Amino acid sequence: MERKEHKIMVAVDQSQESMHALSWCLSNLISDTNNKKKLVLLHVQPPPAVCSLDTAGYVFAPEVIAAMEKYSMELANSVMDKAEAICRKLNAKDIIAERVIGMGDAKNVICSTVLKLDADTLVMGSHGYGFFKRTLFGSVSDHCAKHAKCPVIIVKQP
Amino acid sequence: MERKEHKIMVAVDQSQESMHALSWCLSNLISDTNNKKKLVLLHVQPPPAVCSLDTAGYVFAPEVIAAMEKYSMELANSVMDKAEAICRKLNAKDIIAERVIGMGDAKNVICSTVLKLDADTLVMGSHGYGFFKRTLFGSVSDHCAKHAKCPVIIVKQP
Repeated sequence: MERKEHKIMVAVDQSQESMHALSWCLSNLISDTNNKKKLVLLHVQPPPAVCSLDTAGYVFAPEVIAAMEKYSMELANSVMDKAEAICRKLNAKDIIAERVIGMGDAKNVICSTVLKLDADTLVMGSHGYGFFKRTLFGSVSDHCAKHAKCPVIIVKQP
Repeated sequence: MERKEHKIMVAVDQSQESMHALSWCLSNLISDTNNKKKLVLLHVQPPPAVCSLDTAGYVFAPEVIAAMEKYSMELANSVMDKAEAICRKLNAKDIIAERVIGMGDAKNVICSTVLKLDADTLVMGSHGYGFFKRTLFGSVSDHCAKHAKCPVIIVKQP
């Protein structure tokens, strides 16, 4: 029986840390081209019409929402382009990376995408935030390390 | 300039989960024999004369301490033997695993051994404990994912 293709999902965002995690993955997990491996780049956008500070549930005017969505999509494309540039730089010939853009709360979307795409390994950066930022954002990697249904690799910036 | 040997440290204990993490590591990180990789098996014993329920700071008679130390060493050897049997099974010819036995609070000893031995990657299981046991023991992998100075791979039992 042929072994199924090994699917590695890397969660990427605009942080240097996530790009470092991708580089680590390419150098350490995908360097062995004899194995069948597939790379999935996952970027999660925030849910529409909710900005990260919108805890009070503000409602925005349609043009503001449209501008935020446009910005969000441009950011996603820029993150993906940067990630693919790293793939080309480190693995020019072999790797075809699939782009997946999710929307919602990053930690939940990452875990559910692991399930949905049946990923074998999840790779992500661990933001080196201080206390305040960690309280707000830092729990994504903690949450995924606990809840994702596959091995999780947390790569820190050296 | 020759790249330094890539040192992979696997934290092993008597749990099936840690043995599964070791198997995952051998299949996914060390399968590529072209790369220079070194495996370190780390087992951490509890500090002497303190059993895991000794929150009240009981003092034990010398013969009890001696028995506990003997048990602890036998356990360490049995864990290492089991781990090496897995190495032989999955990678019979190539891998030479170095045994390292630490002593103290697992999460601190694992992080400090990563630093001391300059490990490039840390692999560990994530105990699937329920709430009560996680509160007592489960924070080892969480702590290491945050604090170890190298990429950390958390492997869950499928």
